[in-house]
Amino acid sequence: MGFKRPKIAIIGAGHTGTTVALMAAQQELGDIVLVDIPELENPTKGKALDLLQTAPIQQFNSHITGTANYAEIANADIVVITAGIARKPGMSREDLISTNAAIISTVSQHIKQYAPNSYVIVLSNPVDAMTYVCLQATGFSKNRVMGQSGILDTARFNTFIAEALNISVEDISSFVLGGHGDEMVPLVRYTYIGGIPLEKLMPPAQIEQLVERTRKGGGEIVALLGNGSAYYAPAASIIVMLEALLKDKKRILPVIAYLQGEYQVHNVCIGVPVVLGGNGIESVVELHLNAEEQEAFANSVQAVYQTIEYVK
Amino acid sequence: MGFKRPKIAIIGAGHTGTTVALMAAQQELGDIVLVDIPELENPTKGKALDLLQTAPIQQFNSHITGTANYAEIANADIVVITAGIARKPGMSREDLISTNAAIISTVSQHIKQYAPNSYVIVLSNPVDAMTYVCLQATGFSKNRVMGQSGILDTARFNTFIAEALNISVEDISSFVLGGHGDEMVPLVRYTYIGGIPLEKLMPPAQIEQLVERTRKGGGEIVALLGNGSAYYAPAASIIVMLEALLKDKKRILPVIAYLQGEYQVHNVCIGVPVVLGGNGIESVVELHLNAEEQEAFANSVQAVYQTIEYVK
Amino acid sequence: MGFKRPKIAIIGAGHTGTTVALMAAQQELGDIVLVDIPELENPTKGKALDLLQTAPIQQFNSHITGTANYAEIANADIVVITAGIARKPGMSREDLISTNAAIISTVSQHIKQYAPNSYVIVLSNPVDAMTYVCLQATGFSKNRVMGQSGILDTARFNTFIAEALNISVEDISSFVLGGHGDEMVPLVRYTYIGGIPLEKLMPPAQIEQLVERTRKGGGEIVALLGNGSAYYAPAASIIVMLEALLKDKKRILPVIAYLQGEYQVHNVCIGVPVVLGGNGIESVVELHLNAEEQEAFANSVQAVYQTIEYVK
Amino acid sequence: MGFKRPKIAIIGAGHTGTTVALMAAQQELGDIVLVDIPELENPTKGKALDLLQTAPIQQFNSHITGTANYAEIANADIVVITAGIARKPGMSREDLISTNAAIISTVSQHIKQYAPNSYVIVLSNPVDAMTYVCLQATGFSKNRVMGQSGILDTARFNTFIAEALNISVEDISSFVLGGHGDEMVPLVRYTYIGGIPLEKLMPPAQIEQLVERTRKGGGEIVALLGNGSAYYAPAASIIVMLEALLKDKKRILPVIAYLQGEYQVHNVCIGVPVVLGGNGIESVVELHLNAEEQEAFANSVQAVYQTIEYVK
Repeated sequence: MGFKRPKIAIIGAGHTGTTVALMAAQQELGDIVLVDIPELENPTKGKALDLLQTAPIQQFNSHITGTANYAEIANADIVVITAGIARKPGMSREDLISTNAAIISTVSQHIKQYAPNSYVIVLSNPVDAMTYVCLQATGFSKNRVMGQSGILDTARFNTFIAEALNISVEDISSFVLGGHGDEMVPLVRYTYIGGIPLEKLMPPAQIEQLVERTRKGGGEIVALLGNGSAYYAPAASIIVMLEALLKDKKRILPVIAYLQGEYQVHNVCIGVPVVLGGNGIESVVELHLNAEEQEAFANSVQAVYQTIEYVK
Repeated sequence: MGFKRPKIAIIGAGHTGTTVALMAAQQELGDIVLVDIPELENPTKGKALDLLQTAPIQQFNSHITGTANYAEIANADIVVITAGIARKPGMSREDLISTNAAIISTVSQHIKQYAPNSYVIVLSNPVDAMTYVCLQATGFSKNRVMGQSGILDTARFNTFIAEALNISVEDISSFVLGGHGDEMVPLVRYTYIGGIPLEKLMPPAQIEQLVERTRKGGGEIVALLGNGSAYYAPAASIIVMLEALLKDKKRILPVIAYLQGEYQVHNVCIGVPVVLGGNGIESVVELHLNAEEQEAFANSVQAVYQTIEYVK
Repeated sequence: MGFKRPKIAIIGAGHTGTTVALMAAQQELGDIVLVDIPELENPTKGKALDLLQTAPIQQFNSHITGTANYAEIANADIVVITAGIARKPGMSREDLISTNAAIISTVSQHIKQYAPNSYVIVLSNPVDAMTYVCLQATGFSKNRVMGQSGILDTARFNTFIAEALNISVEDISSFVLGGHGDEMVPLVRYTYIGGIPLEKLMPPAQIEQLVERTRKGGGEIVALLGNGSAYYAPAASIIVMLEALLKDKKRILPVIAYLQGEYQVHNVCIGVPVVLGGNGIESVVELHLNAEEQEAFANSVQAVYQTIEYVK
Repeated sequence: MGFKRPKIAIIGAGHTGTTVALMAAQQELGDIVLVDIPELENPTKGKALDLLQTAPIQQFNSHITGTANYAEIANADIVVITAGIARKPGMSREDLISTNAAIISTVSQHIKQYAPNSYVIVLSNPVDAMTYVCLQATGFSKNRVMGQSGILDTARFNTFIAEALNISVEDISSFVLGGHGDEMVPLVRYTYIGGIPLEKLMPPAQIEQLVERTRKGGGEIVALLGNGSAYYAPAASIIVMLEALLKDKKRILPVIAYLQGEYQVHNVCIGVPVVLGGNGIESVVELHLNAEEQEAFANSVQAVYQTIEYVK
């Protein structure tokens, strides 16, 4: 009886994790538990305390705690996984994959144990494969395990368009399909400015340039920062998913989902448009792709498939 | 003719500076220029780009740029100074003061040159003295140069009370006077829970404990983090001041102001209640202090005075 | 399994009811069912449709429907009662009470039948007595049935103070006890401006004037409107309570609660400070009253008691 | 020097006008002056006072006043015209036009006198012609006088689609061209659900049904209410325009603009996509129309043209 705040656990208290915590608290989405490894227990507690002290100023009612003890995520409603290492100079892609797969696998075991009814959102890279790892390791039904990349990729594309055209970001809508990174498939045909197809407002060469910049959008920021990767826009992307779940919004969003025949793809987690609501991924929306898009998507699937195979 | 967004320059693109940028953009307070030193030009641009890519997701209309070129703050309406080094293990307080005084002085020259009509909010430590340095170096009128510490100190005290009593932070109001840090003067008599004096709801010993924890609130987080200091709540405190200025709110807030006779204090910048509105510090509110509070405030003034003398 | 939006039923689709619906939707507090009498079924549906068409513009995810069929409030989480007639010129107070008691009694039967686990907020006048009627007619436990008057009375007092002092409403906090209307007991001792007691900032005669204006605040607006009574501030007051419940905020707010010994009062519903959270009225906060306040409160209790007796 | 809140005057304090005032205050867009005729001076003051008393509850900093004296709109930054009578049963369309043209003309004279630098948004019906009347009577440049209908029409269409598909309103985008009412031209080709063309998700017959319902959307609510017309969604539409102006958003929105050759139309005010920013209507966006759309738009222009001729 009575009303309780949802409980959101965030695994990984780095920049992205703490920014997710801030933004979730600002929107009063629920109480938040930040979890990191024992070596980082104190910094995690320190970040949680700093966030909690923001509450009287921004007037939000969310409790925020930091811990290295997974028992504290007990009965979380939603778990966000931002844990994992970032790719460092000299590190092979395979090393990154192996290390993060092991981390996500362990984290997923803990989630299975302590929050067996939770919904899980994965952000760790390579995110398509890590979503797959989490799905396998938790054994949760496919509607409850999802990955984030498309909202971020879309936001980057929209930012570039808004700047080029000097139009409000509120009026740009676009859609990105497929894997995160180079295999991304921005659907230019589905990009609109205040309802007007982008192709009517921008020459093809400029569009291609912005698509290319979007594809390499994460790398652009990594190169500028010199040390670390983007976290504001990635965190904000997670919030969009949290809200869609908690408020049962039935939004159509690009989400990394487990496919079992949709788009003629089997047994892969990859970015597709889904209806996201109170039951998680409520359905996969199958867009009609033209030949070129189909080929790009097939390539993207293939790349993710290989990563998953490597993980296995 | 026409409407323009205010221009907010943030000097120092560390955690606090970028968090101020995020929160200012979320509230659509204006366009933002993040400035840092030439060695950090690329990371500053990277952070600005990450923040800008958050705009389509959180649907805010603020332009955000990063630079190492002070010419880009031209005609800023408000400048927030977060620049300066943090105190490192082994560093003497005097070294910290000298180094930051030099930094703030240089920054202030740039502000005077490029944004001669701006209002300036100082957050760099030791903040009372640095506000004084800025006031002198810019030569701006005293209503336009102010420092932040009391909103943060108050927020910490409120957080501890809210947690101890299990009451919403929305219903706790308190007031902190004097310098930042050990010289802080929390006015327990002016602390209320839903309008009820704190002293009616909590035994004196527990109140004293929370006061003490508040006094050392910054240090508690520094100790936990191990590397760096709080930035979420400090940034949020700045936002409260930005909003009071830009929306001409006439709020009563604890702000570091230059005193010329108020509270019988002359020629010192220190935390007092002020009316903060469209003309900056519109007036200093003189509270009646009892003997104990008077003594504590005098001690606090003395400590700040000595730091200012040292700076000179 | 999965997440669902709370369901909020609003009984009475007049100005107050529809404004509550708008504000609840703006905050995405849940889905809303507006209920009115069969004669007003179409206008109720029309208002609900107009509100629903606001959703794409203000970007809220709340479903809003209008009906005259109580079956549609089935399993509502919270019910807000704004039904009842307003006092018309020439109508005796007794007639108003009889008519509204009958209406509230009937409405409460429906709530008992269709939403047996709901929390109920009463706004119909005379609100102290009507809260009592609802408590009896539903048979719900006393934590689940509450009335609203103090948030509104407080807001009026705060508005007058803010205007007189030219200070932001954000910095005024005050507390009103007792019955709604002439029997209201504004606790001037518990009124603060940015933490400063009102009595230090305003002469007694002016305070008394503002207290008096607050007491007659509802009448002032009725007189100006000529036809009808205030609804914006009353509706906003309801929203504060809805949020405190749904987000389990543990706020301290003036709420009409059923007293069983608190303040030495038995078997009356009257405005007192309570802790309002996920379990409704979680506790009554007993303020220490001075002799004058005690007498005023006793008078207020007596007036409400007589109304309740008349209702019986 | 210093920061001031924008001043927004709202002419006509009926349901729409007061709802605009509420929503503008909630967003802290500026101070608000509600103006109505001398006979309604007291009710206008009463509504303003009720709105003002909402400020402490919803924590907004906007001053709100009611008056019948146009001198009080002095130097308003934006004026919203909601004045005018609604069409009553038995009233001919011509009578409505004559009466409202006279009202808008007089109002416009006052605006010219007291707020000569303001931007003006017209909502009075028939809105295309009334925007023309206002443009002529004020003599303001065409970027500063605009009418609202398309945001509302679009919102209605989006609401119907969201409900039919059970998808969040956040993901529906559509575009309506031409005059308000029967002459409206919903561009189905430019309607997307999460980026997916509507035509892929809904059979043509159902689309046609929703288009038809949208065209008659105002009438549907009038019929349900029995007395009066919609005001929540219309008011929210005005807010979108106010924000685009005050925050210099550069949004692409359907707005009633004065055409001088765009779309091969001359000397008519009619709904077209424009870029709305700090300089008002900064440009008209010319969409490519197919033959069918061109014909519908031509009909719409013709209808508005005739109304304008009648007014002259």
